Amino acid sequence: MAQTVEPKRRRGKLTLVLVIFQIIFLVLFGIFVEYGEDSDAKAEQNNLEHGNGGADAMDNRLGYYYPMFQDVHVMIFIGFGFLMTFLKRYGFGSVGYNFLLAAFVIQWATLMQGFLHLHHGKIQVGVETMLTSDFAAAAVLISFGALLGKVSHLQLIILGFVEIIFFSVNEYVGAGYFQTADVGGSMFVHVFGAYFGLAASRVLNKKSWEGSSKEGSVYHSDLFAMIGTVFLWMFWPSFNSALAPGDDQHRAVINTYYALASCCVTTFAVSAMVSKENKLDMVHIQNSTLAGGVAVGTCANMMIQPWGAMVIGVVAGTLSVVGYKWISPFLLSKVHLHDTCGVNNLHGMPGILAAIAGAIAAATAETSNYGYGLYEVFPARAPLVNSTALDTILDDFTVDAGSGRTAGMQAGFQLVALVITLAIAIISGMLTGLLLKIPILDQLTPDELYDDNNFWEVPEEDTHYVKV
Amino acid sequence: MAQTVEPKRRRGKLTLVLVIFQIIFLVLFGIFVEYGEDSDAKAEQNNLEHGNGGADAMDNRLGYYYPMFQDVHVMIFIGFGFLMTFLKRYGFGSVGYNFLLAAFVIQWATLMQGFLHLHHGKIQVGVETMLTSDFAAAAVLISFGALLGKVSHLQLIILGFVEIIFFSVNEYVGAGYFQTADVGGSMFVHVFGAYFGLAASRVLNKKSWEGSSKEGSVYHSDLFAMIGTVFLWMFWPSFNSALAPGDDQHRAVINTYYALASCCVTTFAVSAMVSKENKLDMVHIQNSTLAGGVAVGTCANMMIQPWGAMVIGVVAGTLSVVGYKWISPFLLSKVHLHDTCGVNNLHGMPGILAAIAGAIAAATAETSNYGYGLYEVFPARAPLVNSTALDTILDDFTVDAGSGRTAGMQAGFQLVALVITLAIAIISGMLTGLLLKIPILDQLTPDELYDDNNFWEVPEEDTHYVKV
Amino acid sequence: MAQTVEPKRRRGKLTLVLVIFQIIFLVLFGIFVEYGEDSDAKAEQNNLEHGNGGADAMDNRLGYYYPMFQDVHVMIFIGFGFLMTFLKRYGFGSVGYNFLLAAFVIQWATLMQGFLHLHHGKIQVGVETMLTSDFAAAAVLISFGALLGKVSHLQLIILGFVEIIFFSVNEYVGAGYFQTADVGGSMFVHVFGAYFGLAASRVLNKKSWEGSSKEGSVYHSDLFAMIGTVFLWMFWPSFNSALAPGDDQHRAVINTYYALASCCVTTFAVSAMVSKENKLDMVHIQNSTLAGGVAVGTCANMMIQPWGAMVIGVVAGTLSVVGYKWISPFLLSKVHLHDTCGVNNLHGMPGILAAIAGAIAAATAETSNYGYGLYEVFPARAPLVNSTALDTILDDFTVDAGSGRTAGMQAGFQLVALVITLAIAIISGMLTGLLLKIPILDQLTPDELYDDNNFWEVPEEDTHYVKV
Repeated sequence: MAQTVEPKRRRGKLTLVLVIFQIIFLVLFGIFVEYGEDSDAKAEQNNLEHGNGGADAMDNRLGYYYPMFQDVHVMIFIGFGFLMTFLKRYGFGSVGYNFLLAAFVIQWATLMQGFLHLHHGKIQVGVETMLTSDFAAAAVLISFGALLGKVSHLQLIILGFVEIIFFSVNEYVGAGYFQTADVGGSMFVHVFGAYFGLAASRVLNKKSWEGSSKEGSVYHSDLFAMIGTVFLWMFWPSFNSALAPGDDQHRAVINTYYALASCCVTTFAVSAMVSKENKLDMVHIQNSTLAGGVAVGTCANMMIQPWGAMVIGVVAGTLSVVGYKWISPFLLSKVHLHDTCGVNNLHGMPGILAAIAGAIAAATAETSNYGYGLYEVFPARAPLVNSTALDTILDDFTVDAGSGRTAGMQAGFQLVALVITLAIAIISGMLTGLLLKIPILDQLTPDELYDDNNFWEVPEEDTHYVKV
Repeated sequence: MAQTVEPKRRRGKLTLVLVIFQIIFLVLFGIFVEYGEDSDAKAEQNNLEHGNGGADAMDNRLGYYYPMFQDVHVMIFIGFGFLMTFLKRYGFGSVGYNFLLAAFVIQWATLMQGFLHLHHGKIQVGVETMLTSDFAAAAVLISFGALLGKVSHLQLIILGFVEIIFFSVNEYVGAGYFQTADVGGSMFVHVFGAYFGLAASRVLNKKSWEGSSKEGSVYHSDLFAMIGTVFLWMFWPSFNSALAPGDDQHRAVINTYYALASCCVTTFAVSAMVSKENKLDMVHIQNSTLAGGVAVGTCANMMIQPWGAMVIGVVAGTLSVVGYKWISPFLLSKVHLHDTCGVNNLHGMPGILAAIAGAIAAATAETSNYGYGLYEVFPARAPLVNSTALDTILDDFTVDAGSGRTAGMQAGFQLVALVITLAIAIISGMLTGLLLKIPILDQLTPDELYDDNNFWEVPEEDTHYVKV
Repeated sequence: MAQTVEPKRRRGKLTLVLVIFQIIFLVLFGIFVEYGEDSDAKAEQNNLEHGNGGADAMDNRLGYYYPMFQDVHVMIFIGFGFLMTFLKRYGFGSVGYNFLLAAFVIQWATLMQGFLHLHHGKIQVGVETMLTSDFAAAAVLISFGALLGKVSHLQLIILGFVEIIFFSVNEYVGAGYFQTADVGGSMFVHVFGAYFGLAASRVLNKKSWEGSSKEGSVYHSDLFAMIGTVFLWMFWPSFNSALAPGDDQHRAVINTYYALASCCVTTFAVSAMVSKENKLDMVHIQNSTLAGGVAVGTCANMMIQPWGAMVIGVVAGTLSVVGYKWISPFLLSKVHLHDTCGVNNLHGMPGILAAIAGAIAAATAETSNYGYGLYEVFPARAPLVNSTALDTILDDFTVDAGSGRTAGMQAGFQLVALVITLAIAIISGMLTGLLLKIPILDQLTPDELYDDNNFWEVPEEDTHYVKV
């Protein structure tokens, strides 16, 4: 087994950094975090009837959100973790750092997102904040995909910490201030995570990243990766719909299901077309089959009809395979943009497609095709406070006053959110890349690239059963 | 690595066929498919109260069906996909074609099943139709198991397309017209899928199929297969109960749970008995442990009592291991029936057992042991319209008028449905096999059998860590 | 491939034992087991309205418990099964015997737990008893972890059968008689299972157990194990909260989520610190990341606040890594305690930590921080029957009379339950170890240790693609 390179230079740093952050998290949780009313034994609603666990247990929001939360949880930890195990000698790092990063980020994201939504100076947690913390982890894991095998775990932790700050602010601005619709987080999670990671990768780029024989798969590593792919694919309807209510949620499930089905079929069709001898390429099957879930994520709860979702899936699958085949090599050779997992093809471009599809769907949304459901999907479309229009609605429907936006205005805000997301992601990603160049953060030597051997106790291979 | 054989003959065909079908699906979805009322923003019930997502979000049928739908979804894509990865060099094809076929079929089954249940000329989709589309995919994947490694992906797509037509008609006749009870689809899914695939396999049979050294497993491929096995086993209670209401669903869960537990124990017992030196055989553990889920599928919602479910599990496990040990080799040598995954032992014979168990249970079902629940399990048992018997029931219970069937009549219909299912499956499977012999559909050469190498970009093995 | 050793001595024994037990289970199920009222078609509540499946399907307890039941089911069969596949040549045994043992135990535990909670002489089953049967299986699988690779399947079955008897009695005494709070079963499942298995291991100990070259992992076996780890980690909130009502359940989910997150980060920090060259050790990542779920299990539903849960996670992760690094080797060399999976570090010590944390939390629980929810978490804290204190509560809240325990008394009972659990586990584990020494039960020869080859048909390795 190869000698590890300069192990001493990193002695104790990962431990030190993790311990410091964990202590900070503990202190901040101690000061700021408390149970939400659904999980606080003392809350009045939980002191009514014993047999039902306080209030009616069926009414606890846990019952509504938990099954989908667990689907998303599987996507984060199994899905992203195993999707990246395709590299032949980086399986420990893929699933291991994915695990570490996500467990780190869900704590930090609870705090950052909580600070932006304080209740009387406190952060109230519950299944909904667990969901949004998991979404935040997804963004960091997407960025990780762009850098897989090329940065140290120390650099990853710093990247995750910084990214969550910008991620939370961007989402707060886009979803909160601009009232953009993005139910599946295709802009705020996928576009942000992809271009943040790509920007950092570009800044950190080294010649040694290219051409390593270790940057490839073996037969069984490709099968491990398919565990990740299939779990992501199956549970993506939960990702895109978890936070939507009632019929909106149901619609988001349906649209994502059909977008993914058509995307999968399209990926096989295009992969066979672009590959040598019409063979299928596991890189496409592992990744591009999922692009439909990203691309339908912004408009999943809109009235795009199942056929509309399928068109989005077809375009996304095609775009993604074309990305792997031609755009990634082009960006690598011309722009020196190295993207280990091809996150530009799975999350970046399909995320931009999602934003555009969302803007188009928003531009055609009226009460004629949405009923009053229009104001659930686009709260800013609701009439202004004290307007006659609002009073008419309130006769039949409970709705908060909005900004009286037109369909065209809403579509414009959707595109503005995309531009802002791209800008914040790229600029903050580049700055983070610069930060990660600080020598103390242990950049990898060429020998350490794409290889578990230098950071993990790797077992000696068993040779007993290999016949020669 | 071996040269691929005659790649040019298949240039572009898979792409062409998938593109054509995907366009047809898109057009038909555009014309016929719309959201069901639970997912249509404009539906009146969704325009009442904003805070709950239109109507009370808890009342949306998504909440009732979605957790079990996702369990079934995992069975289809992870369960069937990984169960078939046991072959040493066909892992990509197993999990990959499973993925493609299922994504293809869920679109086509939405249409076919929808055409048989039109609402005012439209197909309304929702979580329930997603469930039945996934069930339809299961039938095709079972047929795939009989043909694994022996047909091209092009042939598989054609097979899936044709099979869904006959599958949907058979189920419509059996469940709709004959009002047969088959809550877990043991007849309409398992028996149909198995004998359709076996009939096609018999027609396509070639001498070269037998005796290939590639038709076997390696150590880690057997572990990948166990991922499929265990997910199928765990979620089978959801498969057998997803579409049943209330106490029927609860009962189907319990019966399937115990049938599977006793089947698993029995499989180990019988496998150790029939194997050389009392060793356990992974083929049995991977497959026969699941036979109890199939065999209890028809009567899972009936009042068979937990001990009854366990008896079914014991018989099914025994039958299945005996099938792998003696019946499959016999059929191969005497009838030239080659069954790669042994679907006759996991789905075929246990499905027939299910039908018989269902008929026996139906023959003993009366209001004395079911209460009025009898008419939920067997709607045709309800008294005729305007009969005195019906009026008496309607005093306490809401029930539609039925056909006034006796227990014996219902049992007879159960057996008739089995016979019809077998007949349609075998005849349509043979016709499909003939269709797949058309030269343009790329039958495999002997070198291409059980081998990913000819249709997939297979990575070079890494030799770096193998010491000699 | 190595010759198997003395295969004849075990001819037919496994089959015979499994058949006998399965018949006993069938007979006892036939006599005692019936559907609970939620799943009995005849029950009055299920004869009201057809459309809803008897009573309102949404009210069936299946809907409340089933999603979490399935999460726990995945933990038992995938989680424990794959966690143990880390051994290089014992993957079939790990996932296979796990499967067999669990399927065996869930039947036997249904009976044993049912006998202790008879309804008019009958055992009523449903989703709640399925949950508690799965919990019982967890205890046996933990014991299996201590003995992995060192005992025959015959010995495992006997061990499982005996363990469930003592397990059920201990839980009945601790949870029922002493009214100890242990929502996640950290004492009754984890402490019991770990020390039962360790006691048996100590009694069975042989010199040959140590120093085998087969007692280690290979690269891909460590990845298979991570499938188990991550599924256990993700679904642990369901394990700790499944049986709690309403806000208690929600709180248990939150506390477990954060305890696991901080435990994961801590495990990486401490693993890097204690390992040679600061490398990460897969043994720690696979196991110690989960210790937080065990350690928070007793107090998960108490008002410990998220920061309290995180502190428990930090302590548990540290304790567990220290256990793997120093305590296990110490116990092996000084006490000849061989613990293949290190269950003392994952279940034993973290379970004791859970009991202590639970006692501390119980000692500080008052209505000032719990409201009347206090009596949900600690039913024995409720005032005595006919007391003025009880009457006051009953004005606002439905609660059964309790024992009027103070916080200190409850804390004392928590510790008493720990001591009793330890005592029963160790004594019954040692007795079981002695029982397993009976020659007829096939103790393993040194050649058979940690090796599938002697009990499974192991495929010849494929050498076709290994280049030399």
